[in-house]
Amino acid sequence: MTIRYPNGKKYVRPAEQTGSRKKADISYSNRGKSLEDELNDSNAYYLSQGIAVIHKKPIPIQVVNVHYPARSAAVITEAYFRTPSTTDFNGVWRGHYIDFEAKETKSATSFPLQNIHVHQVDHMKQVTVQGGIAFLVVKFTTLDRYFILPYDSLEEKWERMLAGGRKSITLAEFEEAASEITPRFHPVLDYLPGIIPLFPQVGEPIERQENL
Amino acid sequence: MTIRYPNGKKYVRPAEQTGSRKKADISYSNRGKSLEDELNDSNAYYLSQGIAVIHKKPIPIQVVNVHYPARSAAVITEAYFRTPSTTDFNGVWRGHYIDFEAKETKSATSFPLQNIHVHQVDHMKQVTVQGGIAFLVVKFTTLDRYFILPYDSLEEKWERMLAGGRKSITLAEFEEAASEITPRFHPVLDYLPGIIPLFPQVGEPIERQENL
Repeated sequence: MTIRYPNGKKYVRPAEQTGSRKKADISYSNRGKSLEDELNDSNAYYLSQGIAVIHKKPIPIQVVNVHYPARSAAVITEAYFRTPSTTDFNGVWRGHYIDFEAKETKSATSFPLQNIHVHQVDHMKQVTVQGGIAFLVVKFTTLDRYFILPYDSLEEKWERMLAGGRKSITLAEFEEAASEITPRFHPVLDYLPGIIPLFPQVGEPIERQENL
Repeated sequence: MTIRYPNGKKYVRPAEQTGSRKKADISYSNRGKSLEDELNDSNAYYLSQGIAVIHKKPIPIQVVNVHYPARSAAVITEAYFRTPSTTDFNGVWRGHYIDFEAKETKSATSFPLQNIHVHQVDHMKQVTVQGGIAFLVVKFTTLDRYFILPYDSLEEKWERMLAGGRKSITLAEFEEAASEITPRFHPVLDYLPGIIPLFPQVGEPIERQENL
């Protein structure tokens, strides 16, 4: 006998389940959406409400060949993905520069640091030194839990790894050092309030310029 | 008789001059470099000196087809350029969010507003409302003159155009409302000091976080 949920959540027949997809079949409203999509949705919401201006940067691509058909748009016929030299998202909130990288992990116990490039860590350090607000957003997909880890904590764990220590950040360490964000309906990932306890300087909106 | 300059500037023989290149033959150290290259060089200098963290965003590209040869890097075989929804450059300086668009014009008398997209103006407005520092960098290539025009002034001229007025910003208007940057040797375009008179709030470095 099978159970059908009365709450509008999509029912998945056991016959459609495959071993590798079992966990994803526990349905949540935001299941199936990538963390990047969730953040893009949240940023679109923030922009539409005048709350913040934060965008995902385009993926860097090395264009090698472009074909220009007459009276049509240029077609790129050969190009390659390049390694990003910075983080994925940046923008401005309450006058503060916001900069973060977003990563998912299927692990239920820790976040592997190999998911982060060294140049992204370097970039977040440069941003922090310059007075910007830099952090990591991590989604534990199998747990449906989201954390904001400030750069300082990431740096500490990164240095631990470089000193020969563990190559990951444990869930318990996230629970201790990070802000947890609870997914909601709209926006799915209201992450900006989670920044305030980590970076108290953003607590107050900055003053607008007089001539605006 | 020809004159050879003793100051290290490259001497260009009159015989090498062509009609269309006459102006470019008055040699300056930065001649031939695009404004984008000059800004990238300056940003690399700022980064290396710990002065600011400002990067050009990658060009947004819509990837349609990717080929994955065995044991080689993925090759993008069909893609298209997309219209950027934001400006070209952004980053952080002294804790302040910096956001700008860079444009060249060959005109010696005015900067045509058709060089700017409406969504870029919208973006700069959103940034300004959010407390960020938004401006336009314009290079009059035939004059070898560079200006930083704050968003407020751009908006004023943009509104004038929308109201049926002139579709450009005159050189005299730049001289009045913008900061002029004088090209130098290293970095070629030291544009950050030019921001201070326009945005007095960046005059003082912000305090670092205590825990760094």
